[in-house]
Amino acid sequence: MERDVVMREVGLRDGIQGITDFVETEDKLRWIRAEADAGMPEIEVTSYVPPKLLPQFADAEAVTRESLSVVGLKVAALIPNIKGAQRGFELGVHKLNFVMSVSETHNQKNVRRSRETSLEEFRSIVASAREIPSHKRPVICGGLATALGCSYEGKIEISEVVRWTVALLEAGADELIIPDTVGYAAPALVKQVFRAVLAEAGDIPVAAHFHDTRGTGLANLAAALETGVRHFDASLGGMGGCPFAPGASGNIVMEDAVYMLESMGLRTGIDIEKLIGVRDVVTKSLPNLRLDGAISRAGLPRGFSPATASAAA
Amino acid sequence: MERDVVMREVGLRDGIQGITDFVETEDKLRWIRAEADAGMPEIEVTSYVPPKLLPQFADAEAVTRESLSVVGLKVAALIPNIKGAQRGFELGVHKLNFVMSVSETHNQKNVRRSRETSLEEFRSIVASAREIPSHKRPVICGGLATALGCSYEGKIEISEVVRWTVALLEAGADELIIPDTVGYAAPALVKQVFRAVLAEAGDIPVAAHFHDTRGTGLANLAAALETGVRHFDASLGGMGGCPFAPGASGNIVMEDAVYMLESMGLRTGIDIEKLIGVRDVVTKSLPNLRLDGAISRAGLPRGFSPATASAAA
Repeated sequence: MERDVVMREVGLRDGIQGITDFVETEDKLRWIRAEADAGMPEIEVTSYVPPKLLPQFADAEAVTRESLSVVGLKVAALIPNIKGAQRGFELGVHKLNFVMSVSETHNQKNVRRSRETSLEEFRSIVASAREIPSHKRPVICGGLATALGCSYEGKIEISEVVRWTVALLEAGADELIIPDTVGYAAPALVKQVFRAVLAEAGDIPVAAHFHDTRGTGLANLAAALETGVRHFDASLGGMGGCPFAPGASGNIVMEDAVYMLESMGLRTGIDIEKLIGVRDVVTKSLPNLRLDGAISRAGLPRGFSPATASAAA
Repeated sequence: MERDVVMREVGLRDGIQGITDFVETEDKLRWIRAEADAGMPEIEVTSYVPPKLLPQFADAEAVTRESLSVVGLKVAALIPNIKGAQRGFELGVHKLNFVMSVSETHNQKNVRRSRETSLEEFRSIVASAREIPSHKRPVICGGLATALGCSYEGKIEISEVVRWTVALLEAGADELIIPDTVGYAAPALVKQVFRAVLAEAGDIPVAAHFHDTRGTGLANLAAALETGVRHFDASLGGMGGCPFAPGASGNIVMEDAVYMLESMGLRTGIDIEKLIGVRDVVTKSLPNLRLDGAISRAGLPRGFSPATASAAA
């Protein structure tokens, strides 16, 4: 499957971590399998946090093991620290996403440590990963929360984003994620930040993670695309929001993002109609969940056709 | 007031034309005055259609007259034909917006005539306007509905958009409006279409009118901005939708558009906080109306500051 853009579902982590009702393991897996079947290449399936902190992820081991049996799916998980990473190493998960904040205040509120201490933790994670034989070693991804603004500190200097980008790269990140944690960004800032990050990253993939808090989510995705970003996080129905960041709301809606990208001639490898069908799978398990989204309500345009190689070329 | 981008409120026409409950004249005027007070430079205040077709606009004369007394406000109205134009001429309205469709099928369904006949009507409107002394003559604006896709015909060839753009220009249009009537567009198409139209338009202002039916509204606005478009229609709370185009939903949300533009360093001349306050004015009159919008719910980012001349330069 050739893809021009790689989408990554984060609803099973970012989307449900704020929900106090435990989502049954089998319901999570139904969602994961249905979305993988629609062509989703990568899913962040859980978080290796202590279950007493986030009981929603008490079944992280079972979810990871079952997800790893889904053929062709890249299985990722969030990790808060080296202990989480070790859980991932044992499970053989494909990718570990570690996130620290560019905002010192947000980092303190979120993980109760300084940015320097978080960076030190990331270095330990990379060092531990490198002890694993390369064919079994997970991808270690470093993320920079609040890179596009912080609800505590307001604007974040681009020089600060660059500084921590370089720090993560020097620490050995295989990939980067740049999130707009609280949905502050508009397209002009997105271009500035991603151009600056991409200039440092070289061949290291850089993913964008937008929240649609202020309506600019898809505009920001389009702006990041123009800078060369080709990896995007989104969640089914726009589920999600960081419980530790006041004013944050959902991720960008996966269905709408895929629709927009395919309309632009960019192949996601995802079957948009099957993807829209995953909403039914999820709402059957979670009838109280509010799924946002425009394309599922409005329907595909008459004459719509998914992107083809020739269109994207 | 220097503006980098000119926003035009269309909620009082596009937004309420589908509502069967008559909005009282005084309620319309309260909305118009409040929005003008927030800095809105132009409002399409009504439509000169026969009241038996759209009773919502039975008070078009009163609304126009009172709007013309709002200092600094450019007052526009939609016209379906020469009869509507003559009502506008008598009232001394500042601008008349005539819309035909690039899609022959949509034009037939919408106004029950061919595109050629619509163009002929536009020529008569321009000819009549030119009999008015220039200092009292309204701006005559030609619009091309379905330019970005049609729910009857599907994709619209860009060559067709160019053909009818040239026809409107040759007929004497002072300005153009290019609407995504049914919300089919994604940013790539937006850029192609607006680049093609701008290439023909020369110094004639070209406005974009997007519907957010499939979530791409603000992304499309940002894409059009990049081609050089600086005039945009939107409606308070995203009200609206073409009752003659199945599947069309609301316009882009004015508050979110203004927020995004100001965040990008582009001056709209609109006070975003006052604009958000207009929602209260409108919902007081129309408590059953559903107003969408993200920025009014999420609030402005910490540290947000409106665009300044130096930022935009």
